Amino acid sequence: MAAELKLPIAAVTMATAALAALALGSHPHHGTLRAQPGHTARFDYKTRYFEQKVDHFGFAEDSTFKQRYLIGDRYWNQDGGPILFYTGNEGDITWFCNNTGFMWDVSKELGAMLVFAEHRYYGESMPFGKKSFSNPKYLNYFTSEQALADFAVLIRSLKQTIPGAQNSPVIAIGGSYGGMLAAWFRMKYPNIVVGALAASAPIWQFEDLTPCGVFYTIVTNDFLKSGKGCVESIRNSWDAINNLSSREDLTFLSRTFNLCSPLQASDVASFKSWLSETWVSLAMVDYPYKANFLQPLPAWPIEVVCTFLQDPSLSAEALLKNIFQAVNIYYNYTGNAECLNISQTATSNLDDQGWYYQTCTEMVMPSCTDGVNDMFESVPWDFQVFSDNCKKDWGLRPRPDWITTVYGGKNISSHSNIVFSNGGLDPWAGGGVTKSISDTLIAISIPEGAHHLDLRSSNAKDPSSVRKARALEVKYIKKWIEEAKIEPVIR
Amino acid sequence: MAAELKLPIAAVTMATAALAALALGSHPHHGTLRAQPGHTARFDYKTRYFEQKVDHFGFAEDSTFKQRYLIGDRYWNQDGGPILFYTGNEGDITWFCNNTGFMWDVSKELGAMLVFAEHRYYGESMPFGKKSFSNPKYLNYFTSEQALADFAVLIRSLKQTIPGAQNSPVIAIGGSYGGMLAAWFRMKYPNIVVGALAASAPIWQFEDLTPCGVFYTIVTNDFLKSGKGCVESIRNSWDAINNLSSREDLTFLSRTFNLCSPLQASDVASFKSWLSETWVSLAMVDYPYKANFLQPLPAWPIEVVCTFLQDPSLSAEALLKNIFQAVNIYYNYTGNAECLNISQTATSNLDDQGWYYQTCTEMVMPSCTDGVNDMFESVPWDFQVFSDNCKKDWGLRPRPDWITTVYGGKNISSHSNIVFSNGGLDPWAGGGVTKSISDTLIAISIPEGAHHLDLRSSNAKDPSSVRKARALEVKYIKKWIEEAKIEPVIR
Repeated sequence: MAAELKLPIAAVTMATAALAALALGSHPHHGTLRAQPGHTARFDYKTRYFEQKVDHFGFAEDSTFKQRYLIGDRYWNQDGGPILFYTGNEGDITWFCNNTGFMWDVSKELGAMLVFAEHRYYGESMPFGKKSFSNPKYLNYFTSEQALADFAVLIRSLKQTIPGAQNSPVIAIGGSYGGMLAAWFRMKYPNIVVGALAASAPIWQFEDLTPCGVFYTIVTNDFLKSGKGCVESIRNSWDAINNLSSREDLTFLSRTFNLCSPLQASDVASFKSWLSETWVSLAMVDYPYKANFLQPLPAWPIEVVCTFLQDPSLSAEALLKNIFQAVNIYYNYTGNAECLNISQTATSNLDDQGWYYQTCTEMVMPSCTDGVNDMFESVPWDFQVFSDNCKKDWGLRPRPDWITTVYGGKNISSHSNIVFSNGGLDPWAGGGVTKSISDTLIAISIPEGAHHLDLRSSNAKDPSSVRKARALEVKYIKKWIEEAKIEPVIR
Repeated sequence: MAAELKLPIAAVTMATAALAALALGSHPHHGTLRAQPGHTARFDYKTRYFEQKVDHFGFAEDSTFKQRYLIGDRYWNQDGGPILFYTGNEGDITWFCNNTGFMWDVSKELGAMLVFAEHRYYGESMPFGKKSFSNPKYLNYFTSEQALADFAVLIRSLKQTIPGAQNSPVIAIGGSYGGMLAAWFRMKYPNIVVGALAASAPIWQFEDLTPCGVFYTIVTNDFLKSGKGCVESIRNSWDAINNLSSREDLTFLSRTFNLCSPLQASDVASFKSWLSETWVSLAMVDYPYKANFLQPLPAWPIEVVCTFLQDPSLSAEALLKNIFQAVNIYYNYTGNAECLNISQTATSNLDDQGWYYQTCTEMVMPSCTDGVNDMFESVPWDFQVFSDNCKKDWGLRPRPDWITTVYGGKNISSHSNIVFSNGGLDPWAGGGVTKSISDTLIAISIPEGAHHLDLRSSNAKDPSSVRKARALEVKYIKKWIEEAKIEPVIR
């Protein structure tokens, strides 16, 4: 439905909306989030830079770059206390740092040092500075394997240089793509980390490991349980838009949705993608309290959204006016937005460009809709179209079977010490590990949780399931630390 | 002692002799070994080529090359029978195939398919054809990680394309560097191989994991137990050579050693390196029966060599005449050599160039001698000199701490299903895993064994220790196969 779109992130099929939605990072050049609290007493970290090799897997390119990382050691037991290491994902690391209150909450109890390492090609950690995205040759080192190698080399250096850290057991922690990295880090570098907490990590959203429709089915279910008529209203909205568009009545749409730029005929697919992404984002951040992760939102935002969508039988115009009220909750809860901009995608903090490159190389995560099990227009997964767009935009083609080859797909039972947590409301849970695989590969379910709710700061309105999940996570982390003491890390 | 040498493989310190000695591959362009039996009924394989990606870890270089592999399926149980997969090391794969009789011996009992995969940049598997060694940029994909990725991608393809192989459990087998690859392959790709037999694999010959002198101490011990006066004769030979050289009496040396080219003053260090490598090679192939691995040799060749070296108190000239008789066993047991060539290094089948590149990048294996615990001249390990030579010869510097970072150093206890076998006579055992680490990381000792004797065909003269070792190896392989049936490989 969207091959004609111009925006890089939306340039593929609607399936890409799911991919884009994973990119929870702030835009490296926006900088607005850096103004958020981060140097308060509670989130008290120092910013450091590590001279990192550009290429860990070859010797021709011997240059280095400055990888940013943040250290919080207020409660660290300097006599070998553990290190909780956040495996940074697709965005500015300060944003992840400030949105991973769980690590700050438990640091005192564990006597732990906190380290948040930025993923290469995001935030300030650009291997070739401002040129990094200018040429395929500069982008060549932008892979998950290089990122994991960065983490391994950084940790080894920290343990060698920080007095008291030499024998510190290190635990990898991450959410979303960062959770995938945490799990893969433990799988590939068990010599470096004694265990990993992989929150909302869809490591099985590759190839045919998970049916491609599960993601949007979960989104739909979130809306289904949040208000009567809500799903039908959204499902009917697509025909309403198509009918208005076919009558070339785009002025009505532009005005109704208070769009910053009037819609053109060629924008309709974009417009629908933007709406879809909005519903997806709402599913991801359907938190039980007022929060500002992707956007400032009320508690249980889908319930609020659904209050506008109780009557699916309205006329096209009336229905779409209600749809606007709903998305306006997402984009303008503060009331400060003068107009809505469909080119910003659903999250203004997204680092579109970097994540789009990753989806066009390693991170091929098939998704699809059928309009029956979900509330979206039917869009099958079409790898060829996806690949053709990657070729056009980046000059390369994805390798959809590499991730399962290098990280094992479903065949991971020989690994150990990984906790996979998933929220029942989170669309990404569909591609996650939701059943324990062994005594040491543990799945924790948070039925009332959206996207990595467990990694957020504790909150008075937290459901008991997330409190229990966090307690269990701490229990496993302590167990790994104890085991490491019995069998110390040799180097 | 040898910084002035011109030969790439001997261009560093004597420590490099050890490195060179590991390179058991035949020269890719010699081809003589290809004429050896290999298409007999017993070693009945088909040669195949797989279209392999040049770069698994980046997307800018999207070219492919033809990786050679050999398949023997005479005894394969086509209903999911196992695959024994030889992880090819530094040389022509047909040579390893023909020198790994163990796999052929057990194939019937296991109903196994045999696959021997050639390591990139060796034999015929050149990523950029004849240009592969012409430029650092073509050499950039010459790493162990790329080689392991080749193996993983090849196996996945074989299982997808060979009818009946889809659920076949795969066991990695290798010796020497190939044994290191087998162990690392299981560590990094447990989704691809259910277990590994790593024969004579010195995975701990890196950084300070093993004292650098152990290698040459074991060589010396082999000579010590093989004849009275033998070690003292060799130890005394260095002074004898130095004395003759200082009197500029090189003609005597050239004639006595029947050298093809007369020695120049600048060749003396080379000459001593060549002798050292000869003793090392003899230690590696000190097999209990007449064999032709590195060279055609009698049974227990060190004992034969030592018959010439019983009197260390002789004059310099008389001693060196005996030394010649000794090395002539190694280079001219057949009596066909017209003269000896010190530039050929100790093994004419060595692929010097490729292995030298690997030692200058990832495979930095420190070794040293002190003249006290060993019979060699004292040469400390000098990384700086080593690195400077790499810079001069290849335009790059080694990364000595990368292998322990990426493959775990001594901290490998979380892995499983690896048998490490080591021979008591093998100098490489010093850097090997010689004590079991867990119930599934098993060390097997073969006191009477030299370099991966267990991988050779069974022989009437085999000591009982190697028979027991092979039986144990088969037991573990069967166990892994059985376990794989209970918990089948998902993909």
